[in-house]
Amino acid sequence: MARARPTIADVAAHAGVSKGLVSFALNNRPGVAPQTRERILAIAEELGWQPSVRARSLSVARSFALGLVITRDPEIITSDPFYPSFIAGVERELSPAGQALVLSVVSNEREELASYRKLVADGRIDGAFITDLRHDDLRLGLVQELGLPAVTLGRPESRPGVSSIPAVAMEDAAGIEEAVDHLAGLGHRRIAHVAGPARMLHGSHRRQAFDTAMRRAGLEPDLVIETDFKAADGARATRHLLAGPDRPTAIVYANDPMAIAGLGVAQHAGLNVPGDLSITGFDGTDIGEHVYPALSTIVADPVRWGSAAARVLLRMIAGDPTEDVDLPPARFVRRKSSGPAPRTP
Amino acid sequence: MARARPTIADVAAHAGVSKGLVSFALNNRPGVAPQTRERILAIAEELGWQPSVRARSLSVARSFALGLVITRDPEIITSDPFYPSFIAGVERELSPAGQALVLSVVSNEREELASYRKLVADGRIDGAFITDLRHDDLRLGLVQELGLPAVTLGRPESRPGVSSIPAVAMEDAAGIEEAVDHLAGLGHRRIAHVAGPARMLHGSHRRQAFDTAMRRAGLEPDLVIETDFKAADGARATRHLLAGPDRPTAIVYANDPMAIAGLGVAQHAGLNVPGDLSITGFDGTDIGEHVYPALSTIVADPVRWGSAAARVLLRMIAGDPTEDVDLPPARFVRRKSSGPAPRTP
Repeated sequence: MARARPTIADVAAHAGVSKGLVSFALNNRPGVAPQTRERILAIAEELGWQPSVRARSLSVARSFALGLVITRDPEIITSDPFYPSFIAGVERELSPAGQALVLSVVSNEREELASYRKLVADGRIDGAFITDLRHDDLRLGLVQELGLPAVTLGRPESRPGVSSIPAVAMEDAAGIEEAVDHLAGLGHRRIAHVAGPARMLHGSHRRQAFDTAMRRAGLEPDLVIETDFKAADGARATRHLLAGPDRPTAIVYANDPMAIAGLGVAQHAGLNVPGDLSITGFDGTDIGEHVYPALSTIVADPVRWGSAAARVLLRMIAGDPTEDVDLPPARFVRRKSSGPAPRTP
Repeated sequence: MARARPTIADVAAHAGVSKGLVSFALNNRPGVAPQTRERILAIAEELGWQPSVRARSLSVARSFALGLVITRDPEIITSDPFYPSFIAGVERELSPAGQALVLSVVSNEREELASYRKLVADGRIDGAFITDLRHDDLRLGLVQELGLPAVTLGRPESRPGVSSIPAVAMEDAAGIEEAVDHLAGLGHRRIAHVAGPARMLHGSHRRQAFDTAMRRAGLEPDLVIETDFKAADGARATRHLLAGPDRPTAIVYANDPMAIAGLGVAQHAGLNVPGDLSITGFDGTDIGEHVYPALSTIVADPVRWGSAAARVLLRMIAGDPTEDVDLPPARFVRRKSSGPAPRTP
């Protein structure tokens, strides 16, 4: 088992004083004569005594860890490019700050609330990241009830009495508008949207942005299919759209995996991308750059989002003032999968 | 801040006894009269007293959390399909067991060792997963020195005195042999391997498997390029191979992202896959099924690997006997990206 670290008892034995006195001296409490205190600190240093985070966390009620509860079907987690990048960004801040990340993956909203309660009751975390905000999100009230510092990714829809939760937001919907403007500018008239789940705020924001941009271009946003973000959903939606009577000439997807799957379906059907069908993604994943044709997409920056959210949460826990943070908006990056609309036959 | 949970002091005050007696009663230690114990338990229950995991972990030196230290460039983490799936598998076991996962992402081996030391010194974890085993892996000696229960993914090369670390292994190299056999059987003679890092055991095992299968088929395994698993590395290696004088007719990649990037490079160069070039991946990712042509690949099962490793580690921490676990071997799945070798011109 682990080699024993010097304890307060060891320091006491070496100093020839009581453990209580050592504890008082090390914790800088009153009632210890200055010379005694000096001598105890010198012996503690000599023995290599260090405060245990676990013991310290018990006394100051801090766990030096932040929590991330991810509520998604494991099947989606494994193909969702957002979380690994977001976590890489979070770790960039936590590691130097001596903080750990406690991760919990649950499959539904009931388990999610229970998970937050348990993490707090067990004193495991000092704060939490709230991702994938939903309409009427129960987590906002819960973290307030639990007194748990928290930061949201994106702004909640309404925050009745929830003014103490800072948001780290990225204007991702603007990227969808850019994509639609780009396609409309290339002459596309039948543009479809393969959307994320409407119960998630970012899913419905992106859909609203699609509607707004379409209407502004004088087009009807009537080709919209809601999905659960899975690549297989993207493939299915694409097959459905391509089989329909008013086949779109362009499809705006709510994430890269679905767009790549859509590209595969189109090519399998013998269509040329972008000659017959233009395709845009959302995420700016690595692999999107390397498929053929390279994916036009909307580049968010989940690594940066993770770092920014971690910094806000650490400041909040330290008791420093925090405010909402606006990251640079997601931006549309044109690559090779989007081009001029095919001439009408 | 958090609403106060009833403490031992509250129970003591209500029962009119000392805190020490309450603690003895709640911890079921001898020296408490049965009636007194009953009364204290009843009051504790009435007040809703619950043992704090943090306090409990301090007294029994357990943290009820397992650690995963990932040592990779953040850039690779974000595109590596292994970890999200592995973590989903781990969480499947931890969540019902009331355990948390503490995650740490570091960028080099020096930080890695420091991270293990700190997680143990801070009493944050009861056990650790050792992934991406390397030659002369310093972590094996370290976890023994620290007395930290650990499980390795795959079998270490040699385990001098390291008999107490169980391994959860999957014969992944066998999948590479199957892929080479498949390609050689289709008439391919110039088969290249875009390999993972040789310093990682699984990287060199897969390369050895490639050599073995090639030699068995009477072919020279001389077209091998080592990479760092990144999609961009896969693209670069493919461009290099296709530009060379003895252009391969088939390429066996060490992961799916590199194979998908290689597919993109080949198609960009105007090659037909699999008519001119056959391509196989490794992972069995979701997206590999949806690209065009669908990727022939070697299906490992990281979710299952995660669950199995978590179960072994939990048993080990509970003091139950453990032994090495052999998962079903990774298997080659033929899809559409591999086919007969082109006729020699």
